[in-house]
Amino acid sequence: MTTNPATTKTIEEAALRIRPLDREAMAEAAGRLDQLTKPPGSLGKLEELAIRLAGIAGEAAAKPPAKAIVVMAADHGVCEEGVSAFPQEVTGQMVLNFLNGGAAINVLARQTGAEVVCVDIGVRGELADDRLVVRKVRPGTANMAREAAMTREEAERAIGIGIDLAGELAAKGIGLLATGEMGIGNTTPSAAMLAVLSGADVEEAVGRGTGIDDEGLRRKRAAIRKAIKLHAPDAGDAIDVLAKVGGLELAGLAGLVLGAAAHRIPVVIDGFISTVAALAACRIAPLAKDYLIASHLSEERGHLRALEELGLEPMLRLGMRLGEGSGAALAFPLVDASCNVLREMATFGSAGVSVSQG
Amino acid sequence: MTTNPATTKTIEEAALRIRPLDREAMAEAAGRLDQLTKPPGSLGKLEELAIRLAGIAGEAAAKPPAKAIVVMAADHGVCEEGVSAFPQEVTGQMVLNFLNGGAAINVLARQTGAEVVCVDIGVRGELADDRLVVRKVRPGTANMAREAAMTREEAERAIGIGIDLAGELAAKGIGLLATGEMGIGNTTPSAAMLAVLSGADVEEAVGRGTGIDDEGLRRKRAAIRKAIKLHAPDAGDAIDVLAKVGGLELAGLAGLVLGAAAHRIPVVIDGFISTVAALAACRIAPLAKDYLIASHLSEERGHLRALEELGLEPMLRLGMRLGEGSGAALAFPLVDASCNVLREMATFGSAGVSVSQG
Repeated sequence: MTTNPATTKTIEEAALRIRPLDREAMAEAAGRLDQLTKPPGSLGKLEELAIRLAGIAGEAAAKPPAKAIVVMAADHGVCEEGVSAFPQEVTGQMVLNFLNGGAAINVLARQTGAEVVCVDIGVRGELADDRLVVRKVRPGTANMAREAAMTREEAERAIGIGIDLAGELAAKGIGLLATGEMGIGNTTPSAAMLAVLSGADVEEAVGRGTGIDDEGLRRKRAAIRKAIKLHAPDAGDAIDVLAKVGGLELAGLAGLVLGAAAHRIPVVIDGFISTVAALAACRIAPLAKDYLIASHLSEERGHLRALEELGLEPMLRLGMRLGEGSGAALAFPLVDASCNVLREMATFGSAGVSVSQG
Repeated sequence: MTTNPATTKTIEEAALRIRPLDREAMAEAAGRLDQLTKPPGSLGKLEELAIRLAGIAGEAAAKPPAKAIVVMAADHGVCEEGVSAFPQEVTGQMVLNFLNGGAAINVLARQTGAEVVCVDIGVRGELADDRLVVRKVRPGTANMAREAAMTREEAERAIGIGIDLAGELAAKGIGLLATGEMGIGNTTPSAAMLAVLSGADVEEAVGRGTGIDDEGLRRKRAAIRKAIKLHAPDAGDAIDVLAKVGGLELAGLAGLVLGAAAHRIPVVIDGFISTVAALAACRIAPLAKDYLIASHLSEERGHLRALEELGLEPMLRLGMRLGEGSGAALAFPLVDASCNVLREMATFGSAGVSVSQG
């Protein structure tokens, strides 16, 4: 595979820029939490999150951040194998739906005051709309059951696009990102990537996506097995895995995670596809893991395994399987709550409340 | 036990007023959900919730409701047995903290635009503050390890207070209630009630509450076993259970659930104590169950069993164990999301998106 030195460098620089969390700010946050009028630790994950956000921001009680959900859209050549319940043109149709504000992610983002940034990183056909961020690497991947989904250079370009976008959003004042995606067929490359990166059985990694039937599920598993056998992606090289059996939105979101972590911005990850993209990012730069916030547990088979690979526990159990960033958007109020608790609660001293005898 | 015919009648009337959900409105909501631009069912519990809210409201796409969290506060004579990590005066101190807006529930309620209604239904000592709703039945329960926590008449009065309060809040335009509580020692009566109402072992029902040590845990279990043996509460009569081994805030919240259901208002239940109160309400009037929304799974041992008795699944897994209604407040945005999805999402037809081939 050929590479482009400029994009390779973008990825290396982002990875090098990711620093460990600020332990001093974390200790300060933890100390303050134990002074607040509640039994120590009784707010559970909200406390863990408040401490981690302090470590990311480098200060103990930052304000609830400005939020954006980045929805990366791309098409998948593997749809030729009959792996999805929806026709491929739905990818582009849904992008227009996002731009017009009619999709679930728009409704959920509006409710929480978050911006939706919709990126065409590889949709088939041209989508003429000024509101769309067009960063098309290629018009959909190749069918991985027959040839590599994309070249290494294309995978690196897609990752670089995510990195750059995180930087642009950071410069605009965004302090919390979420990963979203749209791409008919994209649970197929996600399952293939999970199988390779985690060593999980294809059986364990593959689910029904948007709702495929038993016959479709068999086709999906067969396509993944064929692709993995054909390309033998290197499990120790996440870019190779992204290129051979991945997708353009998966690579873009992996880049978004790297760029966010490089800019000390936490990233709320959504469901199966987003989590696999985050897993790829963490294989490229393991320190990125501390910047990830798991939102919900998807119904899609394989999601729990992907979260376990990252050592993350989701906060929401809603039985969802939509993607778009919908689960991540629902977790935004929990992030705000962890900030607000630390900033606004009274202490035992200030409220005149007696402390534990225990 | 003596009873007061007036309070007995209040409870009977509320129970009789609770009606089954409106199946027609539910079918309309379900039909609309399947037209929206998402795979059918892919929003999981948000869809179930939207359908149930339609059944409660009797219309398919009601607006996000005005919200109130009712925090019932009371003291517990069983604290004499050394069952809590905090001294008993903390109940009253925390009530003042609620009124001054410094507790976790205040922070979380503010974030979601909900009102906090703080009720003294049985705190020891007088709390002079105009912002407090004073409906004191008695200044704390008796020590159930020695005598019944309260008389049947007192339990009925506390239930009646909850019923009336739900009516008052409904009249004010509140369309969504949450149960909250404050009462040092109150996981002890809750565990006793759960053991009696569900048949669970005391071992399984009892946890560490605000964080008691091993010795305290042994005392707590012993106190509960002693009380159950001494009073032999009738598992088939939830009011008897509330009176003998319950608490004033538990009875008040059971009444709030009954009153809310009678006024067709959904109730978000918080953690262990709230769920046991809701279980008592559903034993009095089984139809009330359809009006309950489970918020989070508490760390407190026994909560899962209490939820299972009600057939409810929580949406949030945050490892919290604070009470006050804190977990319920965090679920409010999920209720709003289910309303907003149904009201605001585009349909396949309106957005020009192709439907599933599956």
